[in-house]
Amino acid sequence: MFPYKTSLEIDRKSKEPLFLQLTNQLINLIKEGKIPSGTKLIATRGLAELLGVHRKTVVACYEELILQGWVESIPKKGTFVNRNLPDILPLDFDNKKTVNENKLGFTFYKNPALQRTSLTNEDEVMYINDGISDTRLTPVKEIAKTYRRIVDRTSIFPHLSYGSTYGNKKLREVLANYLNSTRGLSVTKDNILITRGSQNGIYLSSQLLFKEGDIIVVGKTNYISADLTFSNAKAVIKRVAVDECGLVTDDLERLCKKGSVKAVYVTSHHHHPTTVTMSAERRIHLLNLAKEYGFAILEDDYDYDFNYNHAPILPLASHDANGNVVYIGSVCKTVAPVFRVGYLVAPKSFIDEAANLRRIVDRQGDALLELTFADFIQSGELDSHIRKVLKVYKSRRDLFCRLLSEKLNNYFEFEIPKGGMAVWVHLKNQFKWKEVSAIGEKYKLSIGDYQRYDIENTNHNCIRIGFATFNEDEIHELIHRLSLTMKHLEKVS
Amino acid sequence: MFPYKTSLEIDRKSKEPLFLQLTNQLINLIKEGKIPSGTKLIATRGLAELLGVHRKTVVACYEELILQGWVESIPKKGTFVNRNLPDILPLDFDNKKTVNENKLGFTFYKNPALQRTSLTNEDEVMYINDGISDTRLTPVKEIAKTYRRIVDRTSIFPHLSYGSTYGNKKLREVLANYLNSTRGLSVTKDNILITRGSQNGIYLSSQLLFKEGDIIVVGKTNYISADLTFSNAKAVIKRVAVDECGLVTDDLERLCKKGSVKAVYVTSHHHHPTTVTMSAERRIHLLNLAKEYGFAILEDDYDYDFNYNHAPILPLASHDANGNVVYIGSVCKTVAPVFRVGYLVAPKSFIDEAANLRRIVDRQGDALLELTFADFIQSGELDSHIRKVLKVYKSRRDLFCRLLSEKLNNYFEFEIPKGGMAVWVHLKNQFKWKEVSAIGEKYKLSIGDYQRYDIENTNHNCIRIGFATFNEDEIHELIHRLSLTMKHLEKVS
Repeated sequence: MFPYKTSLEIDRKSKEPLFLQLTNQLINLIKEGKIPSGTKLIATRGLAELLGVHRKTVVACYEELILQGWVESIPKKGTFVNRNLPDILPLDFDNKKTVNENKLGFTFYKNPALQRTSLTNEDEVMYINDGISDTRLTPVKEIAKTYRRIVDRTSIFPHLSYGSTYGNKKLREVLANYLNSTRGLSVTKDNILITRGSQNGIYLSSQLLFKEGDIIVVGKTNYISADLTFSNAKAVIKRVAVDECGLVTDDLERLCKKGSVKAVYVTSHHHHPTTVTMSAERRIHLLNLAKEYGFAILEDDYDYDFNYNHAPILPLASHDANGNVVYIGSVCKTVAPVFRVGYLVAPKSFIDEAANLRRIVDRQGDALLELTFADFIQSGELDSHIRKVLKVYKSRRDLFCRLLSEKLNNYFEFEIPKGGMAVWVHLKNQFKWKEVSAIGEKYKLSIGDYQRYDIENTNHNCIRIGFATFNEDEIHELIHRLSLTMKHLEKVS
Repeated sequence: MFPYKTSLEIDRKSKEPLFLQLTNQLINLIKEGKIPSGTKLIATRGLAELLGVHRKTVVACYEELILQGWVESIPKKGTFVNRNLPDILPLDFDNKKTVNENKLGFTFYKNPALQRTSLTNEDEVMYINDGISDTRLTPVKEIAKTYRRIVDRTSIFPHLSYGSTYGNKKLREVLANYLNSTRGLSVTKDNILITRGSQNGIYLSSQLLFKEGDIIVVGKTNYISADLTFSNAKAVIKRVAVDECGLVTDDLERLCKKGSVKAVYVTSHHHHPTTVTMSAERRIHLLNLAKEYGFAILEDDYDYDFNYNHAPILPLASHDANGNVVYIGSVCKTVAPVFRVGYLVAPKSFIDEAANLRRIVDRQGDALLELTFADFIQSGELDSHIRKVLKVYKSRRDLFCRLLSEKLNNYFEFEIPKGGMAVWVHLKNQFKWKEVSAIGEKYKLSIGDYQRYDIENTNHNCIRIGFATFNEDEIHELIHRLSLTMKHLEKVS
């Protein structure tokens, strides 16, 4: 007889019912070939006695095995391991416990461009970022309160089921009004798809715009996540220069004359990464070119709300009379990255197709969060939050830039950015960011993935330093660590 | 002089500051060519008098125009419309208001397969679905309470910023334990990516598994959203028969011998749409084939928790010793579709690449919701919710099946499903679902998109009818409307 007693373990402390514990162990023994096909199983009463469990437990186990097809009951003969089970290939059962972690039984496609080092945050290290909001200023309690209030409505139940792939209707209506009044657009909810942050808008647009070989034009320095998204969609990336007036549209015109341009990606308000604002001349030129050559303008307006010297400049989308602009934005910079609420604004036919695609990407957004943000925007709370943080970020920009020029003038050059959350900092020529990065570690300063700003190897020797996440004390500390690092570097070089 | 007074409107009730109202109107006039390049603007004092506003307002407006590059100030001469603005192409300004809604200035790719009719819900109409949970049973208030409690923690701030593309670490750990104990898996958090529902898991997997022409094998009847996702990823879909034991693996073996199979999609627990459970024999055969031919098994375990006759059958993933299974699940059926929390469970290298891809699809999940569900699962609330609804759905299944056979025996045939939320209903041959659909409308009954169940035109004449969304009264009403419809149909045919 098979050594049932030694092979089966009963764990009375486990949450798993006894009968299921037995069932699963027996299935494994059958699969491993230890109880081969056709074997007669011990009678229920016998097994119950061997294991010291109630007979009903064993009966339930055998019934389960029969239902699942592992064993069969032959009247008046007993219970047998199913004779029709296929021969089982030898399995490496010693590795079973960790098998999923290190074994792969099939192949898939890796995109080398997407392999990026992920930073693990360590205590006491200061991480330089490319311009992220300070989540300590996020009115998260108010948002959670609104969330709960919305959920408490008796009318909430329909919103808990499958919803529109366009996003919640209420939020689309509120956003249409909000974007029309704050950004000079003239859209309705039919021009809006609610996305999960700006990145999701760039992704969906790319999937619709590009097939292998289609041309996307971007700046010679550009937002790296956008570049990765375009290349993942198999678009060919062509680059034009960026100067103090933004994308050089004359270069773009030359490209247009040479071959079909499918789309142009711009962060016209504050070019990522250099922070410059596109001039009116270039804006009009770009719109004219789009009309003439029939390309899409992907306008990523990631930090529209953050202007310190003047009112925000209206986006290209507000001047788009010919349906060329796909406008992308989100609340991730304004409120907090965790709230994945963004919008894709475009001619209706494009939005309709994006909603079709969205159905298979992730089916739909989060209606409860979307209703929460509809309320947050409509009540004016978003605007008053923006007013509040704008003051804070302005004073952080001023402090950071003042200290940078007072204390680090020998090493860095920069323009004070008119808006946004970061400064484009040029390292004077005798130094390299690679060295700053290495020595910074000694002073618990991480400058992050500096290479992403120069994937074209133009040696511009600049990186973005975000100031918005740091409060006054932290800015002093950051400058202090930067000073220590640079002095150390100066000494050794 | 340009007719400033008649061309510019001041709205003192608007939230938009006066200077910005003026700025935006002047920009439009410049863009429209009504104030041409090189034109000298009226002096600030003059314009202030004309409009009855403070001179400071006009000064701010002109400064803004200069900053944005629309006009230039020439010392001792005055303020002029920028002479370097390009000629502006004629714009159709009459249409400006609705321009985005009906005009498209570029081209993009449409996927005809994704064009699906979206249903608009009307009051009083009963909609037949393919098996959706009843959101009235969702413990949404408890979840919102947990959400708020989590947000109230002072340690919440780091979670509000950019997070891991794998999903929240805590939830991944909790899920690893939960899946190991409930589904017999042996995984760690490194095998888990948090997705936004099962569909998102199918999408990400497809993007990694398929390039143009790669073969995916599915059942002859199959879940249509999965089919759409595979064809969108340019995979070639090959179909094998499905019988009362699930996917016919002998057919699959023949396909494997003929050419390279990249992946097989199964809903092994309850085949979608026919509801049958895959037998043990077929399960082992499938796993053996996967090992032998090196393909991936995409196991979509969409309704693991809903078994009425016996304990849930452990997924293929629990028997996967060779790293062939990509296991997909979510809480969308168990709790509610609105909570887009799902999981992709697979060998680590696959999960790592899925996390890389995810970075560009939508960057990350919703950490607050993920923390909420970590708590909801760990506290045992998910399990007690499942126990509660399982009883409700079992009694709904029993009632629905009893009435269906008592009252509609002449028209329909079906097997009582052992689990899940839907019955696979066969319409006897003299009738057509198309007719049922048309006549149903008269009785305020919508049977939905019945064609999706037979995209291969095999004339199986079956659709899924979900019973879980309807309470006892509603089930009686549904049967009543179905009876009226069928009697009417019988009379006219």
